[in-house]
Amino acid sequence: MKEYNVAVLGATGAVGQQMMKVLEERNFPVKRLLPLASARSAGKQLAFRGEALSIEEATEASFAGMDIVLGAVSNEMAKHFAPAIQDSGAVFIDNSSAFRLREDVPLVVPEINPEDAFQHHGIVANPNCSTIITMVALGGIRRLTAIDKMVACTYQAVSGAGQQGITELQDQLRAVTLGEPVQPHVFPCQIVSNVIPQIGSECDNGYTTEEMKMQNEGRKIMHLPELRVCCTCVRVPVMRSHSIAVQLVTRDPISVEDARQAVAAAPGCVLTDDLDGRNYPTPLDTSDQDLVYVGRIRRDLISGDHGLALWCCGDQVRKGAATNAVQIAELLARGQA
Amino acid sequence: MKEYNVAVLGATGAVGQQMMKVLEERNFPVKRLLPLASARSAGKQLAFRGEALSIEEATEASFAGMDIVLGAVSNEMAKHFAPAIQDSGAVFIDNSSAFRLREDVPLVVPEINPEDAFQHHGIVANPNCSTIITMVALGGIRRLTAIDKMVACTYQAVSGAGQQGITELQDQLRAVTLGEPVQPHVFPCQIVSNVIPQIGSECDNGYTTEEMKMQNEGRKIMHLPELRVCCTCVRVPVMRSHSIAVQLVTRDPISVEDARQAVAAAPGCVLTDDLDGRNYPTPLDTSDQDLVYVGRIRRDLISGDHGLALWCCGDQVRKGAATNAVQIAELLARGQA
Repeated sequence: MKEYNVAVLGATGAVGQQMMKVLEERNFPVKRLLPLASARSAGKQLAFRGEALSIEEATEASFAGMDIVLGAVSNEMAKHFAPAIQDSGAVFIDNSSAFRLREDVPLVVPEINPEDAFQHHGIVANPNCSTIITMVALGGIRRLTAIDKMVACTYQAVSGAGQQGITELQDQLRAVTLGEPVQPHVFPCQIVSNVIPQIGSECDNGYTTEEMKMQNEGRKIMHLPELRVCCTCVRVPVMRSHSIAVQLVTRDPISVEDARQAVAAAPGCVLTDDLDGRNYPTPLDTSDQDLVYVGRIRRDLISGDHGLALWCCGDQVRKGAATNAVQIAELLARGQA
Repeated sequence: MKEYNVAVLGATGAVGQQMMKVLEERNFPVKRLLPLASARSAGKQLAFRGEALSIEEATEASFAGMDIVLGAVSNEMAKHFAPAIQDSGAVFIDNSSAFRLREDVPLVVPEINPEDAFQHHGIVANPNCSTIITMVALGGIRRLTAIDKMVACTYQAVSGAGQQGITELQDQLRAVTLGEPVQPHVFPCQIVSNVIPQIGSECDNGYTTEEMKMQNEGRKIMHLPELRVCCTCVRVPVMRSHSIAVQLVTRDPISVEDARQAVAAAPGCVLTDDLDGRNYPTPLDTSDQDLVYVGRIRRDLISGDHGLALWCCGDQVRKGAATNAVQIAELLARGQA
């Protein structure tokens, strides 16, 4: 079996570290793993397959001889390093939003549009975390009928802001318990005992950048250029799993029972749908896993037999970021969808 | 000015205690205040206007001579005591859901349908907390045009489960911080660092009883018998304020600017709508107040010029329960809408 030289760009962040764990867990055929980060972290050690690897400073020269670069850095850094990665001949699987909507860059959720990955020109984009989780949840239904419209409200974990988001929630939990003052640094205001209806910055239309991703990326992933999504993204004091409440309208009528069966049969998806038995996904129950859990499937009371409502949860760091990127690498290594 | 003998039925609960505070704060013309509770609490003292009042055990004989009974007890207790209250000649302003949909019982949000209060036959029902907050938020828009459809997703505080819900969140915050095991008692599972997509029990259509209140009570309060609402109710680890993300479709077209002005001018409502300036309602900022805060008003991307999306927050114990009940008492005392 062919083995690959894999660089993780941004290896010290929450997503970068998770990428290394997932490569190891899934036995991705790694020949050499190269953890890259800023100069500040260079020389520090990271464990991979029981070995201590030294972090190297990311520079334009870092990518020579690499086959795959998994990116877990900011849009700015992704844009900065993309030309050097492309010049090196490696494929850049990028978790930033810098390239997601570019026409020559596939945007891939392997359970939904794996064939797109092979159309790349050196860059494959990893979608937004809430979008990935929602797409996987809707993957089974989409095989039965196109989705025309969605109203999506998110309950997003602090891990979406990286390790510093997790640390901020932990610090504030302690401060509130001990009666100490809470100082927000990462989030716009206190996140413990609060929810914040802003993720990302404002677009011209009054939505946030994060909210527009659900429509823009959803269109590209599902090949539904007319899909319309009204999204509200809300940060909640949860560590790792995002939850999304979705009301959706399908092109053809669909029964609740057919939707349930489709969800249960969809790849990467688990049906957890028994309200009376208190069996539905929650962030805590779905953390530290790669699967997306779906429950509360019911007839939307507005749209007749074209409408459904559902609730889904998935780990933001794993399936919402690191695992999806490694799955894209697996797809490319396998060479077929 | 006429003064009233007022009983608070369920005076030891979170809502009952808040009712007494609100009566005092708003200078409701109370001649005598009678705190009623179960035998267990009888004889304990509660402060009102600087006086210590003894709690009496609630019995069928408790209501003689009362003008108003504010109810903050379970549906079962409300049904049990309603005949005795009606026989006594007092008006029963009931916060339970036992009578809300009965045709001969007005269901009143004073900012929305004050005139309905005067159609009572001894009982006026106080609506569901999330419904009250959403109705106040939509009050201004409703004056411009009827609302046909809504998708509502809630982010509901633990106070909705009463004092025991608040205590459970406090206990779990401490346990998580100290690394102790968390034992859920009030909620179906751990609420700290989690969200729970179930409030109430299951109806035949897969919705919870809590979710159906937004449509059923919304229809009655807004006099819109055809209103259709697809609601998802979610418990979040927040102490007192409920938040609701609403996407709504109006009968006539409405501009975002007109909606903003209508919200700003609506009674009981505060417009807090500057995303770029990080100015939007959060549960923490809106707790311990009687006003409902509305922000994130924007064009719904699905429904063209008939569609809006918005975000609102309000204190569940106050405007969602106690204050609304006292406002109904004020309406009845004033004798006009």
